[in-house]
Amino acid sequence: MPTTIRIKDTTITPNLSVDCVIFGFDFTELKVLLIEREEGDFANEPDKPGMLALPGDHIYANEDLDQAAERVLKELTGLENIYLKQVKTFGNPTRMNNELDKKWMKFIRAEPDVRVVTVGYYSLVKLGQYKPEAASFARHAVWQPISEIPILAFDHNEIVNEALKSLRLKLKNEPVGFELLPKKFTLSQLQRLYEIIMGTEFEKRNFRRKILKKNILIPLEEKQVGVPHKAARLYQFDKEGYERATGENYSFTL
Amino acid sequence: MPTTIRIKDTTITPNLSVDCVIFGFDFTELKVLLIEREEGDFANEPDKPGMLALPGDHIYANEDLDQAAERVLKELTGLENIYLKQVKTFGNPTRMNNELDKKWMKFIRAEPDVRVVTVGYYSLVKLGQYKPEAASFARHAVWQPISEIPILAFDHNEIVNEALKSLRLKLKNEPVGFELLPKKFTLSQLQRLYEIIMGTEFEKRNFRRKILKKNILIPLEEKQVGVPHKAARLYQFDKEGYERATGENYSFTL
Repeated sequence: MPTTIRIKDTTITPNLSVDCVIFGFDFTELKVLLIEREEGDFANEPDKPGMLALPGDHIYANEDLDQAAERVLKELTGLENIYLKQVKTFGNPTRMNNELDKKWMKFIRAEPDVRVVTVGYYSLVKLGQYKPEAASFARHAVWQPISEIPILAFDHNEIVNEALKSLRLKLKNEPVGFELLPKKFTLSQLQRLYEIIMGTEFEKRNFRRKILKKNILIPLEEKQVGVPHKAARLYQFDKEGYERATGENYSFTL
Repeated sequence: MPTTIRIKDTTITPNLSVDCVIFGFDFTELKVLLIEREEGDFANEPDKPGMLALPGDHIYANEDLDQAAERVLKELTGLENIYLKQVKTFGNPTRMNNELDKKWMKFIRAEPDVRVVTVGYYSLVKLGQYKPEAASFARHAVWQPISEIPILAFDHNEIVNEALKSLRLKLKNEPVGFELLPKKFTLSQLQRLYEIIMGTEFEKRNFRRKILKKNILIPLEEKQVGVPHKAARLYQFDKEGYERATGENYSFTL
């Protein structure tokens, strides 16, 4: 855990936390970074895997919500200045009533019975950029495909679902997908990203016509290297075009 | 204040509140319901108007966030089952540092120095349906045009701005505007609603063609009555068409 971020007042706000849905894309699947809880779940059976949960933490006394989310993200990934967006706040009074969750809370919290309201965030990171480290209260950190998310701790499944809805709405209204792609990419890779996030398939020609009309892509003179098939042209995002397109008239529907 | 909602545990959560941006539409302007703070601001000058603020309250110990927002809305408007949507949560540690706000907090709160994080909501109500009553801590409730919002208490201007952004995004992605219109309306009234919320003008023929293609309107055999100009046809929303249109492919851009 980096020490620099501990300089500030680290008194926690016991009834307020942030939880982060960290999305990663590997050209095949959309994945979510989950952590395996270390203690409490199965203390008598140390070999049994702990429950999976979203990375999160309580908010420090003098910390803004976004700062708390940035801190959680940095602890797990080492990354800073990553796309991060508040999704929704979850405050069902029964959200921590599950027996396993209660047991775990007793193990790690000074005030396990305090009701916690949590602010959900999502962030987008390019896979391959780093390897996640487990947080202090976790055994492992794993990239789990979005189609294979098991039952998570607390109401974390609901938070993942809301984050995915929010990401879809964002992608429809802003050209935000490039956060999940390398700097240079092919149109097929971009199409795959849209298809996987939106959970739908696009007709290749339609997709290309529509996305090129947005004027948010710069065609490069370079082509892919080291691929078995015919190398495709590479593109990069046009930052200025992107800024122009992020207005209220941008829409991506096919 | 209705007594039914006081049956529950009314112990407040001192550092958590909800604030509601209640939008109303009168065919001319989009308005926001604001309350005038009663005490504290200018205790020595009782004739001077108090600062305007969004209606809000702390969250009760066993209350969900949505329930708290519903309660605030009901206290002010008497209305239930109104469109209500969580916008964003605001937790800047300095959001209550303004001297006037501090003074007011000291006047009305048992723990005025506790940092409060607030969950912002917006709701849509048809104007003319009721008259707002001032909340217990307010002198008056006023409908303020969105173009004439003064400096509000705390970070409430920021909350209004975020709510408006959220409403615009919603209107672009879902046919949600009917919440602000009477049951039967003309296409001109609907166009005016879109123009005022989006802050833009639409060409009349384009607007009609586009909105009718969505299949969310039922043309009625009735026409307007008591208007000085040629009476226009009335429409109502097609609930089933609306349900079909609320998917990820709905988009309203011109």
